[in-house]
Amino acid sequence: MTKRNYIFDIIRSVFHLYGFKPIETPAVENLSTLMGKYGEEGDKLLFKILNSGDFLNKTTDEELLLRNTVRIANKICEKGLRYDLTVPFARFVVMYRNEITFPFRRYQIQPVWRADRPQKGRYREFYQCDADVVGSDSLLNEVELIQLIDEVFKRFGIRVAIKINNRKILSGIAEIIGEVDKIVDITVAIDKFDKIGLEKVNEELTSKGITDKAIEQLQPIIGLSGTNQEKLDTLKNILQASETGLQGIREIETIFNKTGLVPISAALDLDLTLARGLNYYTGAILEVKALDVEIGSITGGGRYDNLTGVFGMPGISGVGISFGADRIFDVLNQLNSYPENLTRQTQVLFVNFGEAEENYAFPILMQLREKGIRSEIYPEASKLKKQLAYADSNQIPFVVLAGENEKTAEKLTVKKMATGEQIQCTAKELCKIVSS
Amino acid sequence: MTKRNYIFDIIRSVFHLYGFKPIETPAVENLSTLMGKYGEEGDKLLFKILNSGDFLNKTTDEELLLRNTVRIANKICEKGLRYDLTVPFARFVVMYRNEITFPFRRYQIQPVWRADRPQKGRYREFYQCDADVVGSDSLLNEVELIQLIDEVFKRFGIRVAIKINNRKILSGIAEIIGEVDKIVDITVAIDKFDKIGLEKVNEELTSKGITDKAIEQLQPIIGLSGTNQEKLDTLKNILQASETGLQGIREIETIFNKTGLVPISAALDLDLTLARGLNYYTGAILEVKALDVEIGSITGGGRYDNLTGVFGMPGISGVGISFGADRIFDVLNQLNSYPENLTRQTQVLFVNFGEAEENYAFPILMQLREKGIRSEIYPEASKLKKQLAYADSNQIPFVVLAGENEKTAEKLTVKKMATGEQIQCTAKELCKIVSS
Repeated sequence: MTKRNYIFDIIRSVFHLYGFKPIETPAVENLSTLMGKYGEEGDKLLFKILNSGDFLNKTTDEELLLRNTVRIANKICEKGLRYDLTVPFARFVVMYRNEITFPFRRYQIQPVWRADRPQKGRYREFYQCDADVVGSDSLLNEVELIQLIDEVFKRFGIRVAIKINNRKILSGIAEIIGEVDKIVDITVAIDKFDKIGLEKVNEELTSKGITDKAIEQLQPIIGLSGTNQEKLDTLKNILQASETGLQGIREIETIFNKTGLVPISAALDLDLTLARGLNYYTGAILEVKALDVEIGSITGGGRYDNLTGVFGMPGISGVGISFGADRIFDVLNQLNSYPENLTRQTQVLFVNFGEAEENYAFPILMQLREKGIRSEIYPEASKLKKQLAYADSNQIPFVVLAGENEKTAEKLTVKKMATGEQIQCTAKELCKIVSS
Repeated sequence: MTKRNYIFDIIRSVFHLYGFKPIETPAVENLSTLMGKYGEEGDKLLFKILNSGDFLNKTTDEELLLRNTVRIANKICEKGLRYDLTVPFARFVVMYRNEITFPFRRYQIQPVWRADRPQKGRYREFYQCDADVVGSDSLLNEVELIQLIDEVFKRFGIRVAIKINNRKILSGIAEIIGEVDKIVDITVAIDKFDKIGLEKVNEELTSKGITDKAIEQLQPIIGLSGTNQEKLDTLKNILQASETGLQGIREIETIFNKTGLVPISAALDLDLTLARGLNYYTGAILEVKALDVEIGSITGGGRYDNLTGVFGMPGISGVGISFGADRIFDVLNQLNSYPENLTRQTQVLFVNFGEAEENYAFPILMQLREKGIRSEIYPEASKLKKQLAYADSNQIPFVVLAGENEKTAEKLTVKKMATGEQIQCTAKELCKIVSS
């Protein structure tokens, strides 16, 4: 929890720095809002909530005996748990369309639920951290999100590369080679170029039913290399005849130029193999890879044209990103790069030596809290060893011994747990020692 | 959300100050963990989650046709949404008994779900904010929680009275008058003393089947008044023959004395009519009332002897409190006593005058963020009126105008939205103006 809060706190504070406002939506949504939005597989993974009371009152005996579970589920469940943050957000935007001032910069950090078999790295309940700007076409939004991503991973101390692509470039390529339906096959094959080489990639493309002519046209794209500008120049050449493709290139160039106004730490690389969310994203596609840990994408996002169309409110475009908190957690664990003092743990434990000493220590403890120092007193006069073990297991750095001698001298003894060093001091000095 | 976060942030930071550690439990629990813990009514209000896949495979046709919904629900649902934080916490303590160092100071701020008909002030999903110390009998824990409550409401600027009672005193009274089963009836009747007077209270007691002799013995308790000490003295007299009752009095006295070591702002009042959670609390019972707003208890809690017994781990006692976030929200709204600058809203909006000006403004915006100032730039060069309306509706206090003139002069104009005042300044001066 403490580690996870550290992750959320950093992401949240950068969201705020960039002007994103928090929203939360209820965990329980109408199934009519959720069903059909995540494909057939997604529908199966929705947690459905049994109606209260006489939940069978809409099913006939005949229906029950047919045991068509999908149909029966529809009749006995009206609600379900949210599956992601995007669909509830879209529902929220439609519902509050008249109260929202667009462009609307919102973020949302909440759990989502999927009825997957639990397995390593897959949880039934996990958090998503999404930020979106909706109601604005400006590419400045993409630039802002790239800067934001860079800032977040700088704060984490995770070196990353930010990969960018544009759906319009992929569409342009498909258009030029006349294989509009095969974008995904093409990007999957190209993605293997580094591992299996040109010949095998071409074989795979053939096996997917792509014509020899199209494969020939794809050759300069498969081996595309060099700087971003060199790649874009090659693409411009190839995509001359595709207005959509050229538009994609212009968009990427604008994003590169504007991001360059304030240099970022991460590399920003054009990567044509990015093809996430192709049935959703219409412009930029973003993905973040950690450089020092082998792991999939740790953040992703993109530009979409039609967030709320399915809820009867067309034309709401936006761009968003989603931080993969669980993977960031894994990366930080592997790099062991949490800060030494994870936020807000107890700093001081007062040992309890009994009634009289407790009454001496308690007001001093309250003085520390008054100064914002997170402190505890052990609630009973257990053996010293047990109390010190408590400090140890709770990683409390300072232990205050206020026994009979200290009480008489109106002093305290503070023990630094890391070194074992003990210092006699006054209450006032204690505050300084702990804060330093 | 911003207001709710303000409430949670204050409660959370005081929890940390007092050494409480955050835990979170999954929203989805096994129904076997939840059922039977909240009474029959509670079982009905549990959100039950339909098993995935062929959920009917454990029910026969005969069972289905009998339409016994309670039994069928048990066969088609294994999971449910948590109903409160206490039961999942108890489950957590049992599950991690070998890893937890007792005394265990945990807090938990999470939503819970109840399948109530939604109505004003009652939500199907609402947050609970609980803090407990388990594995310690020391009354110092009660004192700490009272100090903590006082600190929380001081920070909110809500004047409160903290009411305290002790289950053992109530048991003592019942014991003395020989009406062990009628504690609740008695406290309910006594509670009406101020409104209906002694005669009517006595009538009510009679109507509840309490004997004349018992009612006579109750007379000094019904009208109990004076200072806490006066009340305790009266009670000591009455409860002479009840060891349990005297024990309760000693506990309250200890709590009063220790709380007095560091005076609190709130009044701490002995109130015999407090009878919340009587089937659960075994020692102190606490309740907080707002002084300036008519509303029920806004925080409550108490000491329990057997948190985890129902899960096969007897003898774990503790004491806890629960802040009523929704009611605190209502009180703050009625008093209108939120701080002027609710945390973490955007402080500065840069107006967008077009391509060239945007490129001038963007690096300055990034400088502000570098300094931790929450800033935005309007993403496109819309009409100035629209951009100012955006600042207004998002309550952004400073708007920066960086148009052609400012760009040429390498200056900025900052407009204070509250007064309309405009100042020409450099980027550096802007940071100072905004931070001051």
